[in-house]
Amino acid sequence: MTQTALTDLDIANMLADTAREVILPYFRHPDLGTENKDAGGFDPVTEADRAAEQAMRAILARHRPEDGILGEEFGARPGRSGRTWVLDPIDGTRGFLSGTPTWGVLIALSGAEGPELGIIDQPYTGERFTGAPGLAVLDGPRGRTPLATRATASLDQAILFTTFPEVGTPEERAGFDAVAGRVRLTRYGMDCYAYALLAAGQIDLVIEAGLNSYDIHAPIAVIEAAGGLVTDWQGGPVHDGGRVLAAANPILHQAALEILRRV
Amino acid sequence: MTQTALTDLDIANMLADTAREVILPYFRHPDLGTENKDAGGFDPVTEADRAAEQAMRAILARHRPEDGILGEEFGARPGRSGRTWVLDPIDGTRGFLSGTPTWGVLIALSGAEGPELGIIDQPYTGERFTGAPGLAVLDGPRGRTPLATRATASLDQAILFTTFPEVGTPEERAGFDAVAGRVRLTRYGMDCYAYALLAAGQIDLVIEAGLNSYDIHAPIAVIEAAGGLVTDWQGGPVHDGGRVLAAANPILHQAALEILRRV
Repeated sequence: MTQTALTDLDIANMLADTAREVILPYFRHPDLGTENKDAGGFDPVTEADRAAEQAMRAILARHRPEDGILGEEFGARPGRSGRTWVLDPIDGTRGFLSGTPTWGVLIALSGAEGPELGIIDQPYTGERFTGAPGLAVLDGPRGRTPLATRATASLDQAILFTTFPEVGTPEERAGFDAVAGRVRLTRYGMDCYAYALLAAGQIDLVIEAGLNSYDIHAPIAVIEAAGGLVTDWQGGPVHDGGRVLAAANPILHQAALEILRRV
Repeated sequence: MTQTALTDLDIANMLADTAREVILPYFRHPDLGTENKDAGGFDPVTEADRAAEQAMRAILARHRPEDGILGEEFGARPGRSGRTWVLDPIDGTRGFLSGTPTWGVLIALSGAEGPELGIIDQPYTGERFTGAPGLAVLDGPRGRTPLATRATASLDQAILFTTFPEVGTPEERAGFDAVAGRVRLTRYGMDCYAYALLAAGQIDLVIEAGLNSYDIHAPIAVIEAAGGLVTDWQGGPVHDGGRVLAAANPILHQAALEILRRV
């Protein structure tokens, strides 16, 4: 079967709907199965993670056979269209295992220049944050509302998020702490939900390190569509992963970048 | 008007329903008004906080005029019944201001011995965690499910939560870190939602310091009803606030207590 009449946004929503359906029965399930991917650390993979990615890959095989796929669980499948669907079925597996509604399904459609369309979906709260050219919206329990980053004009008024206080290497932690020392409020523990909150105009900065490509494609698309900026700590593109600085506006981005560049 | 035929649980649910209704329009509102209670730190009070407590006090004045009230925003009103309603309309104001669904409405009914009935309500996710004699339930988007803490038998299998990495004083932080160094996973940033997750069998330990009385009454009632334990770091009652250790079961409680007692 060749490309159907479904738009890319239709496909992205179909992927997100399917992931929700597959993952939700596992969330807060007492027998949640896990395995340890990395003997040195704690990086659980759940059956939900794998089952959701397989279900999404099946949809893409049917509706977008020419496109490539990069998925957290099953790696890369090259395409012939120059476009790649980047999938992380459960971003924030530690949050998932702890029962917090901070994990999300990340779906992006990316070209050579980076992500063009992205979804951050939180199945338990029923919130879907979507960014695409000309579209930045939250569909949730209160209906559809526009996403727009906010105009906070100085670091001392900013709210900063990251997931772990360790952040990354000692140098990366020091860089983060140098920014944290300048802001109004620093909070932890939100996984990809922090990027969604930034797009929604609730917080101002997210700074993380050691991210994978599939962790950041969807947040880039959603935040850029909502008016924010996502780069590495030198101000360059970050869709290949690594050290991430997401900011609500250019002023905050520049102010944080001046501190992080020294790392 | 004297005591009506409504049960205490009816009243508690009425309080929680009212707080939801008052607070939700303020949540994620772009013009959210805040003021700084403490010139030295960041402790925002929102209009929502005050409005919700006033609305709850009005209900109690009508239906439970003999009972005392202890509220975060408007202090203590002594009663004549020996019973006190302990209210924190928005526990986790920093989370509230950041748009995270980790804050909660805390409602408890307490006697001289401590809390007897408690509710942790998360208005945005629509989750209500209730603990009372013979009752431990979550009412949420999936309907009603029982709350029961889990049987994790050793620290090295436990998931530990606290809200801020600083925890409290340097000694308190060192005590927390000593436990954190022994567990499987440590997470941050959940405000009162961490206690709810413990009652729901999702996590194993919550350790915090510097809590107020109104921060902990409701969590005590919910967690005890679900089979867990909540004490201070010496193993004594903690309903007057201070350093809190909440554990899923007596084995974990004892193991954490042995470490924290040295602080």
